Amino acid sequence: MDDKLMLMIPGPTPVPEQVLLALAKHPIGHRSGDFAKIMAEVTDGLKWLHQTQNDVLILASSGTGAMEAGIINFLSAGDRVLVGCNGKFGERWAQVCQAYGIAAEVVSAEWGKPLDPEQFRSLLEADTEKQIKAVIVTHSETSTGVLNDLQTINHAVKAHGKALIIVDAVTSLGATNVPIDEWGLDVVASGSQKGFMLPPGLGFVAVSPKAWEAYATATLPRFYLDLGKYRKEAAKNSHPFTPPVNMFFALQVALKMMQQEGLESIFARHRRQMNATRAAMQALGLPLFAADQAASPAITAVAPVDVDAEQIRSIVRKRFDIAMAGGQDHLKGKIFRVGHLGFVSDRDILTAVGALEAALQELNYEVTAGAGVAAAAKVLTQ
Amino acid sequence: MDDKLMLMIPGPTPVPEQVLLALAKHPIGHRSGDFAKIMAEVTDGLKWLHQTQNDVLILASSGTGAMEAGIINFLSAGDRVLVGCNGKFGERWAQVCQAYGIAAEVVSAEWGKPLDPEQFRSLLEADTEKQIKAVIVTHSETSTGVLNDLQTINHAVKAHGKALIIVDAVTSLGATNVPIDEWGLDVVASGSQKGFMLPPGLGFVAVSPKAWEAYATATLPRFYLDLGKYRKEAAKNSHPFTPPVNMFFALQVALKMMQQEGLESIFARHRRQMNATRAAMQALGLPLFAADQAASPAITAVAPVDVDAEQIRSIVRKRFDIAMAGGQDHLKGKIFRVGHLGFVSDRDILTAVGALEAALQELNYEVTAGAGVAAAAKVLTQ
Repeated sequence: MDDKLMLMIPGPTPVPEQVLLALAKHPIGHRSGDFAKIMAEVTDGLKWLHQTQNDVLILASSGTGAMEAGIINFLSAGDRVLVGCNGKFGERWAQVCQAYGIAAEVVSAEWGKPLDPEQFRSLLEADTEKQIKAVIVTHSETSTGVLNDLQTINHAVKAHGKALIIVDAVTSLGATNVPIDEWGLDVVASGSQKGFMLPPGLGFVAVSPKAWEAYATATLPRFYLDLGKYRKEAAKNSHPFTPPVNMFFALQVALKMMQQEGLESIFARHRRQMNATRAAMQALGLPLFAADQAASPAITAVAPVDVDAEQIRSIVRKRFDIAMAGGQDHLKGKIFRVGHLGFVSDRDILTAVGALEAALQELNYEVTAGAGVAAAAKVLTQ
Repeated sequence: MDDKLMLMIPGPTPVPEQVLLALAKHPIGHRSGDFAKIMAEVTDGLKWLHQTQNDVLILASSGTGAMEAGIINFLSAGDRVLVGCNGKFGERWAQVCQAYGIAAEVVSAEWGKPLDPEQFRSLLEADTEKQIKAVIVTHSETSTGVLNDLQTINHAVKAHGKALIIVDAVTSLGATNVPIDEWGLDVVASGSQKGFMLPPGLGFVAVSPKAWEAYATATLPRFYLDLGKYRKEAAKNSHPFTPPVNMFFALQVALKMMQQEGLESIFARHRRQMNATRAAMQALGLPLFAADQAASPAITAVAPVDVDAEQIRSIVRKRFDIAMAGGQDHLKGKIFRVGHLGFVSDRDILTAVGALEAALQELNYEVTAGAGVAAAAKVLTQ
């Protein structure tokens, strides 16, 4: 049905009406006092959301642009770094390193399994000459629905003492706890179309004082992605380039909504919806791709057996106007992914599970009718 | 008055209501057939607007991001290039070159004066070993309201035969003729918040086959700004990263409006409004910063004598809710700039001139009341 699309993908995620309407306001000049006020307000809101006193800088870019900025501003060609790879995004950060001549050592795990913090620990411990300049970790691996154990990996980084921890928090920020100051995370990158309840178009990078020290001697070339330029202008509530002012209007509204809900409530909602989604899949006999201990609160990946993942997606999309995500790269056709990230209500989980059940019935997959919705409802109402 | 702002700055420019409403639509998935259709349609529209069969690629970035991509994808460290500098943006492209170790030779003119094509010709002619890899020119220098003679400079580049011509068309595209294929322009960069009648958030880069040849051997590091990634995905009506889908909805509508108006009418409108604005300033005794032969159809810079530019701007803003731009860098306080770019109607010119006259009266500047509006009206109704 036209104009009836429901997004249950891990980005773009659903956007509240009041945020959409803010987006439709007439632009203002970005060198005005009015814009400076907005810049000040959203910067405060972002610091709250990031649980940090560090700078949080705003780029007109996708999450990848923000993450690239988070890598290249603090390193030089030839620098040794560790990159966690257990999905498409971990692999992407290794590619960024390669493009810039950074010596990336990959710490990998099978797609669908979490990174092993022990591997990071032993490599960091062995580095007695302190040559490892950074450890790059994808917190929530969007491609597989795995939440990596950032806290334990970060302990090893802190024990090393020298290396920066650079975090892809694209699908974890605003969905689960990422306490930047408490944990001492140096660089944390994310994107607007995820937990922020915004359309795509903005990238965010939080930068610690220790990372700024590294910036002072880092020599990789950059201009548009030069975070020093953003820091300098942000200090004046300004922006080095022409910022997407309409997205700033929207960010202002979305941050207010998030502050009203409260961080703990937001995290609890994501956890509850993850649990409900996972319970439903199990009740329907659909194998979960990530184990319970490594499940992302933003996205649930499902690896159906005896029924085609793409057929399920297609029916759910065509008959019930719900977009779910497919598998990426070698997982194409093998998994489907249900996003429960950002502006998702408990009702949406029931709806998505109901549509999934109907699709399974249409595919003559043996399923106890109603079992998925019942299991989800049980979790949601507990 | 709240919510009554009228933008007469060179970006962000006014946005039509139907474009704003498209922006407020609920996002869709960027890996969907629906998005592929939009991508195909806007790419066709962009080729029409750019008067080219070359690739026109779409980035989530400001115009600076697009222009940086237009430079760094086709050059290597140490490459010799000529950069035209007669304003803030020409200087910025020289800074980009510097950041990447490109050997930029600056061809400068005083701010407010056009670049001298003869200087480019003699440098290119002297380069018998064909070591100059590119010539970088800002077509419409937003900081001064000067339109550089791109066509004549380009003749010299074509006579050289080897160098690429890389054009900052940020405030010229969609305002004046930039016939990419007819002139043989290799790289042309622009941004959405200008002639496109959109808010900021998208950058565009048109790339010729000759530029793609240079890309194949260019070695500067890049990832998010790697145009090869955009070309590869655009061939499948897709995008390498998460595109700002709402801006694509808006772009779709804006391009349709531009096609309905027609290129010649759009250019004529900008020319007419430029002429009317300039006639008004002269009737008010306000000196124009750029000469008639070098006047940008997007923006008119005015250098008032015996009356403070910032006071004028302040009154126009506070009393009449019109934003005009100030001078940048050393021109701060010395000039003000009136944008007549994008979605500006003849009525807007009368309005802006009327407010300017009122401000001059408030400042006790000797002015024949009504002379500015009368002069503008005469041009507009001719």
